[in-house]
Amino acid sequence: MAQTQDKIDELAINTIRTLSIDAIQKANSGHPGTAMDAAPVAYTLWQQFLRYDPKSPHWINRDRFVLSAGHASMLLYSLIHLAGIEAADIGYQDQDGLAVTLDDIKSFREEGSRCPGHPEYGWTTGVESTTGPLGQGVATSVGMAIAGKWLAATYNKPDFELFDYNVYALCGEGCLMEGVGSEAASLAGHLKLSNLCWIFDNNNVTIDGHANITFTEDVAKRFDAYGWNVVRVSDANDIGELAGALNAFLATDDKPTIIIIHSHIGYGSPGKHDTPAAHGEPLGPDEVRRTKEFLGFDPDKFFVVPDGVREHFTSHMGSRGADLRAKWEALFADYARAHPEQAKQIELIRDRELPEDWDADIPSFDADPTGIATRQASGKVLNAIAAKVPWVLGGAADVAGSTKVVLDYEDAGEFQSYGELGDYAGHNMRYGIREHGMCAVVNGMVLSGLRAYDSCYLIFTDYARGSIRLSSLMDLPVLHIWTHDSISLGQDGPTHQPVEQLASLRAMPGLVVIRPADANETAEAYRLMMPHKSRPVALVLTRQAVPTFDRSKMAPASGLAKGAYVLVDADGGKPDVILIGTGSEVALCVAARDMLAKDGIKARVVSMPCRELFEEQSDDYKRSVLPPEIGARVTVEEASPLGWDRYAGPEGIVLGMNTFGLSAPLKVVSEHFGFTPEKVAEAAKKTLGR
Amino acid sequence: MAQTQDKIDELAINTIRTLSIDAIQKANSGHPGTAMDAAPVAYTLWQQFLRYDPKSPHWINRDRFVLSAGHASMLLYSLIHLAGIEAADIGYQDQDGLAVTLDDIKSFREEGSRCPGHPEYGWTTGVESTTGPLGQGVATSVGMAIAGKWLAATYNKPDFELFDYNVYALCGEGCLMEGVGSEAASLAGHLKLSNLCWIFDNNNVTIDGHANITFTEDVAKRFDAYGWNVVRVSDANDIGELAGALNAFLATDDKPTIIIIHSHIGYGSPGKHDTPAAHGEPLGPDEVRRTKEFLGFDPDKFFVVPDGVREHFTSHMGSRGADLRAKWEALFADYARAHPEQAKQIELIRDRELPEDWDADIPSFDADPTGIATRQASGKVLNAIAAKVPWVLGGAADVAGSTKVVLDYEDAGEFQSYGELGDYAGHNMRYGIREHGMCAVVNGMVLSGLRAYDSCYLIFTDYARGSIRLSSLMDLPVLHIWTHDSISLGQDGPTHQPVEQLASLRAMPGLVVIRPADANETAEAYRLMMPHKSRPVALVLTRQAVPTFDRSKMAPASGLAKGAYVLVDADGGKPDVILIGTGSEVALCVAARDMLAKDGIKARVVSMPCRELFEEQSDDYKRSVLPPEIGARVTVEEASPLGWDRYAGPEGIVLGMNTFGLSAPLKVVSEHFGFTPEKVAEAAKKTLGR
Repeated sequence: MAQTQDKIDELAINTIRTLSIDAIQKANSGHPGTAMDAAPVAYTLWQQFLRYDPKSPHWINRDRFVLSAGHASMLLYSLIHLAGIEAADIGYQDQDGLAVTLDDIKSFREEGSRCPGHPEYGWTTGVESTTGPLGQGVATSVGMAIAGKWLAATYNKPDFELFDYNVYALCGEGCLMEGVGSEAASLAGHLKLSNLCWIFDNNNVTIDGHANITFTEDVAKRFDAYGWNVVRVSDANDIGELAGALNAFLATDDKPTIIIIHSHIGYGSPGKHDTPAAHGEPLGPDEVRRTKEFLGFDPDKFFVVPDGVREHFTSHMGSRGADLRAKWEALFADYARAHPEQAKQIELIRDRELPEDWDADIPSFDADPTGIATRQASGKVLNAIAAKVPWVLGGAADVAGSTKVVLDYEDAGEFQSYGELGDYAGHNMRYGIREHGMCAVVNGMVLSGLRAYDSCYLIFTDYARGSIRLSSLMDLPVLHIWTHDSISLGQDGPTHQPVEQLASLRAMPGLVVIRPADANETAEAYRLMMPHKSRPVALVLTRQAVPTFDRSKMAPASGLAKGAYVLVDADGGKPDVILIGTGSEVALCVAARDMLAKDGIKARVVSMPCRELFEEQSDDYKRSVLPPEIGARVTVEEASPLGWDRYAGPEGIVLGMNTFGLSAPLKVVSEHFGFTPEKVAEAAKKTLGR
Repeated sequence: MAQTQDKIDELAINTIRTLSIDAIQKANSGHPGTAMDAAPVAYTLWQQFLRYDPKSPHWINRDRFVLSAGHASMLLYSLIHLAGIEAADIGYQDQDGLAVTLDDIKSFREEGSRCPGHPEYGWTTGVESTTGPLGQGVATSVGMAIAGKWLAATYNKPDFELFDYNVYALCGEGCLMEGVGSEAASLAGHLKLSNLCWIFDNNNVTIDGHANITFTEDVAKRFDAYGWNVVRVSDANDIGELAGALNAFLATDDKPTIIIIHSHIGYGSPGKHDTPAAHGEPLGPDEVRRTKEFLGFDPDKFFVVPDGVREHFTSHMGSRGADLRAKWEALFADYARAHPEQAKQIELIRDRELPEDWDADIPSFDADPTGIATRQASGKVLNAIAAKVPWVLGGAADVAGSTKVVLDYEDAGEFQSYGELGDYAGHNMRYGIREHGMCAVVNGMVLSGLRAYDSCYLIFTDYARGSIRLSSLMDLPVLHIWTHDSISLGQDGPTHQPVEQLASLRAMPGLVVIRPADANETAEAYRLMMPHKSRPVALVLTRQAVPTFDRSKMAPASGLAKGAYVLVDADGGKPDVILIGTGSEVALCVAARDMLAKDGIKARVVSMPCRELFEEQSDDYKRSVLPPEIGARVTVEEASPLGWDRYAGPEGIVLGMNTFGLSAPLKVVSEHFGFTPEKVAEAAKKTLGR
């Protein structure tokens, strides 16, 4: 152990290490190596730097610490336990009031423990973001830093430095190899996010071996190229050097910082130190003994927190955090008097609430047989809301003009680091051609209270699924705005035409996928999703114009809230056949209904913009929309048929796409693949045996 | 126009430009900007450097040119047309024998044209890879370069330099912003792929504006950090400078090269030059006129190829290519005499064939109630095949030990650039923690004739869908080997437990998803997929052991080839209920069948490892497996239920996962989510109303 550590520091660091290896050994599963080697830096950061009150873990101006190397979860759980972070997430409160008890640590990776295999946001207080999938934590931290800059630029006033939090992310080689990390790093450098610090635990070992079998690039030079400040630490155990590096970050006000720490995986384990074997499996009982002996711990005792360690956390991190938070609360009280309007907004942000009049200007759209694209309608509705809710901000992956997510209300502004293009108080984000990074960044912004949105063409959600999944797993109220939603985008052809994306997204637990049929359903989708305090929504929109239905002759668009509804029923009694469509295909069903009527066939048209919401309705409601006794059904969606049998039933016909698309003008594509009113009517007749 | 161009060069370059803008104007859709600014470099490369015989476009040692900026498709189509590349892909041969006729160009982006919106491999000869989704082309080019290095290291002999092809990829800002491009670039630098040249058309404009709104990193420094040779061209129109840069690439033998070309989007268009408006829409009739006037073309004529231009291509690129190819064929004839065994292998690679005895050593697995994980079985079968087929090579995204894809037959070796770790003749690829890059690289390797495989945990296919989709769209015989296929991976928890991935992948047209139930089905899956000349296969495998079924009492595993089969039928007559499982859940069904038998209920167990293959069977076969009259059915899969209604039918029960998973030991997870024989039996009784 380096000489620069005080005795108590050494004891605390080794407590983190031994708690980690004991928990992993008991679970017989886990990743000790990084928890052991990165313990000193995490400890130094928490004890000396992190502005965090363990008794108020949701304080809005707290520093954030993201364990991007999520497999080292025991490192984080040990810290949460030793720091005495109190349980504050909804839904649990143990007898001690602690977020992580020693019993949780003893039941690491068991059902019910607050110490699952990888850190889970919302399950364990003190976990700022769910991590484990590599690259996600660092990318998400960029969103948190963006939020910090925006909050400061928007709400700080002379004498009121309300927001000045920093964001730290601890990562390993994996996070830096993953493309999502690279995308986010490039964006962070562009935006000069000086409140962001990545700590790279450069232990030179990955699962399959030493990192030099795959990763020989010059990380320092790469980050320099991105516009980052690069700081090196030569000895991962030297607290003085670590503190110096963290101070160098604090002193840098014009760019993000990466601290590259030369470390030894499995530090403390005489037999596995510096070997891939330390990465992803328990040390084994014998090696645990030897490690404890090396670290000066009793090898016959387990889960030991030596006297003085918890107190040491309390007297440093805890008292500093409590003090800072108390001062902040006092400052905020004064701020609320001086700037009541802004203070109210901050409270709304904190509580994930909306201003009362948030929906006052949502337009309704007049009936129009030509209509407008739902992406166009979305742009109008989004702007009407964003003008009322200043913390609605977002943008697209270089297709904002095309996905119609540009905020153009007065003073919407652009989020940029420098003057000519915009500033940190701007609302239009420019994510660049970085879909995966974008979605991770938006997760970080939403984790920070903003109602942030991402946007791209539906097809390129394929690039971002890692982060989209995390928005669902974390149950975050992210707004995904995805356009160009079918083969009907036409000439760009099969590389750009979604086919399998709708089914893929519907398969994801928790994600609400809404594909509105017209402009008014689009408005209703916003009405529905904006008040969400949790639950991500994917709004899936057309490139091409679709008719705006005449609601005086049809059911109101508010039916969208139930996921599916009878848009227009058969004239005169029980329907012979039910036509079920989503999005642009609803208009085909309506036209087919009229054609069928001429042949004396009574057709009901069901608009089904959201299957997830429909499934949540009562059986009675579902039966009223899709009566079981009407087996003649046609479902119509220009996408993979996967999942449509559920609604078509055994006698029904599913009109979908079993192949990729085709580069040709919209009309040609529609006819080629049979998405016309004629074909819908034909299918309806077939289900009726005609 | 720069003085350094000869008259005929200038004429040829401007022909590319005017063909491009005419086609885009006529289609009223497309991306003229890059086609215009990058015409000189593409022209210089093709005319002076590319070793490519237009009359033999599939020559195995040809240089590859990948248009990674696929939206500039008209640039490529113009070159293919002017170079006179002959149609050689299966399925088309027009009257001229040309891959792209002037009529194709005139019908750009129309149905049937060989000039679709983005370049499509297999549809248009001369297109080396389908591009358009940004970053894919550059990443795929890395795989082509890897293949080139492997072929050279494996088959070149003294006096027989059979393989020495180079790979060029032309890209824009987007390809460099996308993470998949970064991953591939880092890998290419690590592997020191000196046969790889990326040409970065640095026109500083993206769709939403000038690139400086999102992309201000120092690209040259970043690539230097990756270990690349960086060359700059200050004037995109200076052929001499361009040729100098390409010669600098040729002179570099220890690293890949990126040529950064300072260019002006929409060059030649007086009104749109250097503006985002030049990127993604037709210039407009007036601007087309003005551009032609600027370029010295008659504004009243369209689709003009001036006299001498085609001939100029023939006399340079064409004659050089024909000469090189003829010499190569002679060399290969000599080689075949000197090294008949190797020559035979090269022919098999070229024709996507396998050696006759490729399957001779595939093991069969003895019945065993404990069994082995299907990933274990896969490892044994893969090795048995790879030892017979030297061009089977691949690896994993840093989990090779875990996904069991390490090739351990004698001399399998490791693919590395340097001696201690391996060399270019090695078979074990180390892709690093770069799933997206990995899958794109494998596409490039397979496009080059190798039977390459990728491997990672199933969950992380989410990171790679962009490239997986392209393997399907290009119909490539890629082997995807994905393990840890369900919540049964246990303690790593919900971030690592797949739920929606199976449905997501099944929704993708063309991809064959196989989830074998035991070791012998795993072997059958390899038997089935190895002979594929097209069609990617995703093998989805368990982490945990599953019983190896006693086939003396059950149907043979060869039933897998039909996608689903009756593994074991009800004893004594017609079944009361059908239990349908995939992968590890088949064993649950078998156990449930035995439990039900004790209650006098006759259950049939259907193993359904592959839905795609089952759907291709005759109706008779399908009805024999799933008789319509038996409505009592239970489907069991530890994954999203999406799509299972199709087989469960209206009376059946779908056992699946409607939520994310849980971090706990396997047994606890299974019980928590109800994946036990008892629950399957219970569901069966419920369908029977008991």
